[in-house]
Amino acid sequence: MNKAMSSWVAGANAADTDFSLNNLPYGVFSTHGQAPRCGVAIGDMILDVAQAEMAGLTGTQDLLQQAVWNPLMKAGPKVWAAFRARLIGLLKEGSAHVEDLTPMLVPMSDAAMHMPFRVAEYTDFYAGKQHAQNVGTMFRGPENALPPNWLHIPIGYNGRASTVVVSGTDIRRPVGQTKAKDAANPVFGPSQRLDIELEIGAIVGTPSDMGQPVTVAQAREMIFGYVLLNDWSARDLQAWEYQPLGPFQAKAFATSISPWIVTAAALAPFAAPAPDREVPLLPYLVEDTPGLYDIDLFVHMNGHQISHTNMQELYYSSAQQLAHHASSGCAMRSGDLLGSGTISGPKPDNYGSLLEMTWGGQNPITLGDQTRRFIEDGDRLTLTGHAQGDGYRVGFGACTGTILPAPDFYKETT
Amino acid sequence: MNKAMSSWVAGANAADTDFSLNNLPYGVFSTHGQAPRCGVAIGDMILDVAQAEMAGLTGTQDLLQQAVWNPLMKAGPKVWAAFRARLIGLLKEGSAHVEDLTPMLVPMSDAAMHMPFRVAEYTDFYAGKQHAQNVGTMFRGPENALPPNWLHIPIGYNGRASTVVVSGTDIRRPVGQTKAKDAANPVFGPSQRLDIELEIGAIVGTPSDMGQPVTVAQAREMIFGYVLLNDWSARDLQAWEYQPLGPFQAKAFATSISPWIVTAAALAPFAAPAPDREVPLLPYLVEDTPGLYDIDLFVHMNGHQISHTNMQELYYSSAQQLAHHASSGCAMRSGDLLGSGTISGPKPDNYGSLLEMTWGGQNPITLGDQTRRFIEDGDRLTLTGHAQGDGYRVGFGACTGTILPAPDFYKETT
Repeated sequence: MNKAMSSWVAGANAADTDFSLNNLPYGVFSTHGQAPRCGVAIGDMILDVAQAEMAGLTGTQDLLQQAVWNPLMKAGPKVWAAFRARLIGLLKEGSAHVEDLTPMLVPMSDAAMHMPFRVAEYTDFYAGKQHAQNVGTMFRGPENALPPNWLHIPIGYNGRASTVVVSGTDIRRPVGQTKAKDAANPVFGPSQRLDIELEIGAIVGTPSDMGQPVTVAQAREMIFGYVLLNDWSARDLQAWEYQPLGPFQAKAFATSISPWIVTAAALAPFAAPAPDREVPLLPYLVEDTPGLYDIDLFVHMNGHQISHTNMQELYYSSAQQLAHHASSGCAMRSGDLLGSGTISGPKPDNYGSLLEMTWGGQNPITLGDQTRRFIEDGDRLTLTGHAQGDGYRVGFGACTGTILPAPDFYKETT
Repeated sequence: MNKAMSSWVAGANAADTDFSLNNLPYGVFSTHGQAPRCGVAIGDMILDVAQAEMAGLTGTQDLLQQAVWNPLMKAGPKVWAAFRARLIGLLKEGSAHVEDLTPMLVPMSDAAMHMPFRVAEYTDFYAGKQHAQNVGTMFRGPENALPPNWLHIPIGYNGRASTVVVSGTDIRRPVGQTKAKDAANPVFGPSQRLDIELEIGAIVGTPSDMGQPVTVAQAREMIFGYVLLNDWSARDLQAWEYQPLGPFQAKAFATSISPWIVTAAALAPFAAPAPDREVPLLPYLVEDTPGLYDIDLFVHMNGHQISHTNMQELYYSSAQQLAHHASSGCAMRSGDLLGSGTISGPKPDNYGSLLEMTWGGQNPITLGDQTRRFIEDGDRLTLTGHAQGDGYRVGFGACTGTILPAPDFYKETT
């Protein structure tokens, strides 16, 4: 494991900050109502790298001026590596640029965060085996829990990019069609079984061409970085709509991501193998090097921790998912976001959704003096996660969202 | 029905041209390797409207200079109507602008066509009842053919925007996982059951906000125009992958659209009601005015006509689909493309896919002295369609694609 690096920005050397010098994640911030710009988190500060680039300090040109990271993402792995090396040089203890950079540091507490990149397309996978087994058991019984293709295919479906929002964005409770088991007809109204899904999102940096599949090794090189991802889900809409063509409006209303993109380079020291294969994979999916990361993940609901799990619970890596995504000849774009699928560990307090924690709403969870089966209006859900180094952390910051009441629309149309 | 309008561009007055003055569809073209630009089809000619705008003739400013129609699409229904009225004035018999415009006309035969708009996101629906019944019967038996939600929900799933291509683009046969019913394990290789789906695509012009559902009437106003759409499908990949989260790589490799966007205004005289409801719709989906169009649709394979159907075979209109799409609070974007679902009529020669025409490959179709169960390498598939007025047509031009052999990739990874 990498050693902790020391920064002249004091807050970055705290053992419990997500934003050590070893991390250096990328976000987009604004202060005092000014225009958003690219920044790098370091301790409790943000380095205004748009300004640093203008001053000729970053080794890049015109890659950091658009208030999204897409231009750097497109530039490819060599530019990513050179930029990261330069950032480390600028921010490490003993840097020659302390005086130049000090005026470009903004306290994180003064900053509002914005979407760190333009999402090209959003795809959500289903790569957590415990999750697939839990959900399958509830929907189809324990004998048919795992679909027959699950151990062969990193199953995924296309999601909706227009509603991927940054942490802190309030989420309106969705309305939609639901049908009670014993009802003759569906009704239209606010979802009564609103849920989270704890996931990690991989961001594609370099694209692939239509008609040109990629290997798992190539896919790994294409991945720019990772975010925490909450795939908000309306379970009652989902149960009624999802056969035969998959989830649609049950997932389309919102997906929240953490404001900081943690680079693949920062996570490299924490690479961890996927679980042993239960059946051999087809050769196009075989991964020679560890493709997961040892990232501890947490869910808080109204301040109470309700889950703790780890990315290593996934059965397929993001590189395997990306290789499968391109396998048909599907062109992959710079800015594509790939949700990992819900990451559930072995026990209820390791599960990544309320559906699993409460076993379909049967066993409410406790939040102090309250209980919950699903999410109520005003509830605040927060994902956090970090890799633990020797004396330092590489973390994502919080991915949070508060649920607002459903829009009045449904009252006018029912 | 509108009367035929006469144009000073002689070819537009031919009874069998797709591109009468009543039509005026929007495309993007190039000639002699020059940069692509916005054009309007009129008879056998294309009016270079990028040039016409520069000359101050179109009543628009900076909406036609980007070689995609997205800027006009975003400008909204009032601008669409004013622009169309101006075009009719410029191109009708007796126009005062014949001399100005003649040098801006390019023979269609000299032009290469390009994508007419940037696709924001692509969604595919499943609104043809005959198609849903045919496919359901093959997959689940006649008793369970129509899913229980089908008569209540315009079922749809998110598709892949990165591989929507303009007519004339060659399509590589996809590779992927398939599993024979009696095989223990899947294999990876070229699809052996490659198919078309005959659809019409609706293009969203004006966007909607996240958390803000829209009514069917509002949805209708948001639709800019329509294209023919071929949702290429690998049936063997689809059968193995689609449970439980829907089609993914079986559809992700390619979707072809016609080069000309026929506006909602041009189709208005051909508005036609959807079939009678078999069960009442929930109020948010009720449509007060006819939402389909009387558009004859044809499929040719290697020059042989293999199907003839009509858009009126759909059970849900594009406005109903769009209202459902936004119902959860999903933000809709200018440039979203909504495939109608496969449009099949009552008999095999009205079916919109080979899967249905050959009943899962059991009954080959005849093409001259050849037969086909599914698509072979080198086969050319062409969709055409038009609404028939009194002495004139409003048509889309051809949506065509030729299948190339699978990439070698799979050989290296199997």
